[in-house]
Amino acid sequence: MSYVIPADRGEAEALDSHDLLGHARELFDLPDGKTYLVGHSLGPATHSALDELERTASGHWRNELVKAWNSAGWFDLPRTVGASLARLIGARQDEVIIADSVSINLFKLAAAARSIARTPALIVEEDEFPTDQYIIEALSKLSGRDFVRAKSGDGLAHLERSGGVLVLSAVNYRSGEIRNMAGAEGVAHSSGGVIVWDLSHATGVTDVNLQEAGARLATGCTYKYLNGGPGAPSFLYVRADTISRLESPLPGWMGHEKPFAFEPVYAPASGIQRFASGTPPILSLAALSGALEVFESIDMSLVHDKARALGELVIARADALGLEVASPRDGRRRGGHVSLRHPNGYEIVQALIHRGILADFREPDTIRFGLSPLFLRFTDVWDALDALADILATRAWDDPAFRQRSKVT
Amino acid sequence: MSYVIPADRGEAEALDSHDLLGHARELFDLPDGKTYLVGHSLGPATHSALDELERTASGHWRNELVKAWNSAGWFDLPRTVGASLARLIGARQDEVIIADSVSINLFKLAAAARSIARTPALIVEEDEFPTDQYIIEALSKLSGRDFVRAKSGDGLAHLERSGGVLVLSAVNYRSGEIRNMAGAEGVAHSSGGVIVWDLSHATGVTDVNLQEAGARLATGCTYKYLNGGPGAPSFLYVRADTISRLESPLPGWMGHEKPFAFEPVYAPASGIQRFASGTPPILSLAALSGALEVFESIDMSLVHDKARALGELVIARADALGLEVASPRDGRRRGGHVSLRHPNGYEIVQALIHRGILADFREPDTIRFGLSPLFLRFTDVWDALDALADILATRAWDDPAFRQRSKVT
Repeated sequence: MSYVIPADRGEAEALDSHDLLGHARELFDLPDGKTYLVGHSLGPATHSALDELERTASGHWRNELVKAWNSAGWFDLPRTVGASLARLIGARQDEVIIADSVSINLFKLAAAARSIARTPALIVEEDEFPTDQYIIEALSKLSGRDFVRAKSGDGLAHLERSGGVLVLSAVNYRSGEIRNMAGAEGVAHSSGGVIVWDLSHATGVTDVNLQEAGARLATGCTYKYLNGGPGAPSFLYVRADTISRLESPLPGWMGHEKPFAFEPVYAPASGIQRFASGTPPILSLAALSGALEVFESIDMSLVHDKARALGELVIARADALGLEVASPRDGRRRGGHVSLRHPNGYEIVQALIHRGILADFREPDTIRFGLSPLFLRFTDVWDALDALADILATRAWDDPAFRQRSKVT
Repeated sequence: MSYVIPADRGEAEALDSHDLLGHARELFDLPDGKTYLVGHSLGPATHSALDELERTASGHWRNELVKAWNSAGWFDLPRTVGASLARLIGARQDEVIIADSVSINLFKLAAAARSIARTPALIVEEDEFPTDQYIIEALSKLSGRDFVRAKSGDGLAHLERSGGVLVLSAVNYRSGEIRNMAGAEGVAHSSGGVIVWDLSHATGVTDVNLQEAGARLATGCTYKYLNGGPGAPSFLYVRADTISRLESPLPGWMGHEKPFAFEPVYAPASGIQRFASGTPPILSLAALSGALEVFESIDMSLVHDKARALGELVIARADALGLEVASPRDGRRRGGHVSLRHPNGYEIVQALIHRGILADFREPDTIRFGLSPLFLRFTDVWDALDALADILATRAWDDPAFRQRSKVT
């Protein structure tokens, strides 16, 4: 690993001053006086994202109007932005498109996957992100196929038996646990089954490599560690040798071979474009396009190393505070966030927010610290843990103001 | 009708000076020296759309980060923006949500509609917008149900026979012809069938009224006459008494009764929110939210009247030029655009663009003039027709530079 774990604030400062990723923080447009540990939920604004948004809205849209579909490259944006994202997940540039949401893309991929799986059975584990479960169950209802909601960790065993289609997260949204992707793909391969990967919590913070893992299908968020902006459209990956074997179950005009021939019968585009459906939200895509510029010269293995080191710092200090750690202790098995448990987790998160330290809470008792390596410093995390220690020592969380619930923290 | 058809430029000027909608033009941020007749494809920027986008990106996202989901009302935005759109289509505020694209929403509605239709047959006419055909045919493939691609105008006869689900545009994308919605709903009612309306070319330019028509299900574009921005997310309408009877086939976490309880089994939200799927593209939604402010005090029947009058002006002058009119001559049957046909339509549109008059072209020979009543003046349209007359008289279109094709015009 390229980073060590600081034992005191001085060591944290020293690490920051030599951090090979340290320059990236300047590319973010962070509000003053905040420590932002929620990059795993919504990444912060970058200068390049805000600039590209402004250029697209007040420049291209305002001035070039409908011509901007050609002149500003809007028509190609789902693929050009997909191409710039590809390296970050170990994909080829022509294997990725930006389109719709993770929910919609899971539906597309799981439905399409059944044409290459040995059986059309659909499997998802009970602790996957809820959307993944809802969408797959709904697909099974619509198409009248078997659906299995497997116990946590049992998905691969079901895949092995059925040779069907399994939706699996590369990093669990709650615990931050990393899956062994290559191992899972081995099971898929030998059983004739297919895995649809949800990379939402892996992308931009781990060195996930789809090619090395032998992965065929994947989708994921762009508004978390990729900082694409609130609700930025999702990405969809299909391995090059598989694209032409699949048809989208949601074939909109933008996925047609000749969208402007306005033909009544659908003919899929030859490449990854066939997974587009309707007209993409260009303003949201523009912000994402700008946000990805931050990653241009970044070594993702270094990003993952730093995420691990920040995570180990959190775990070491949480241990000292007697907090239960709900994430894997082994850095090789942990993504970009660390989950801690405390019966008063909700109030503790509110008390942290009150001190300018933004973290998030997941029912019933989980405090999540998102450790985005591109803008967080070791000292930021050190100081956040100091604040946590103080909140626990003084019971500062025990304040009626911190008990009021809001929809999202 | 509140408007007359000007017989010369002086009369056009007089109409403009007394136009009750004349003030709305100031709300648009139009580029200098252009006449924009493509509002039926991509509406232009308004000051309020650009302002709201800036406020959302550089204000809420940048400063409030993930807290903006609550503090800036992002979580409710699909419904609050839907509520402000509702009046423009004659719907109740709690019957409309902004979500996904028209393609995706057609899929949701057509799939869901089968639980209230007498039979699950799916019908679409061969001259509907291609996406509508692709999506409905794909739904039928996925669910193993009958699919009928009806001849143009035969959709209702099929609906009457089958009692199935028919997708129908309120205004045809090519000709601009308006459907008799109430008449069609009468057929649906008596046959036990259900119509899913595509309002893409009707919304913001006609006084379409879903309640009066007895319509139960509809979706449509927001980036055309509503000026929501390129690829702005679509709206979805379900009549209040029907919402609880339908389930979305694409149930993402945002459509769950308690999205932040993270329950493994889907339970639909009680209202229109159940038709949400994944996380919405907030930046694109923000621009749409701002764009709709322009319509706040606007009488839609006046908008429709002005669109008709502008259309009649185009038709009268096209007749004088000997051009074939491919749109209905009867203003009551015509939406917001007028289509003219000419074997050299493509080159003619390029020649118009060269003179700063933006129109669009649809294969093989159709010139479309989009007549957005909120920013176009009678003199703008008068002068555009003068330019068209000159281009035809001088054969200015017959220039090699105008033959080069681009993807979108």
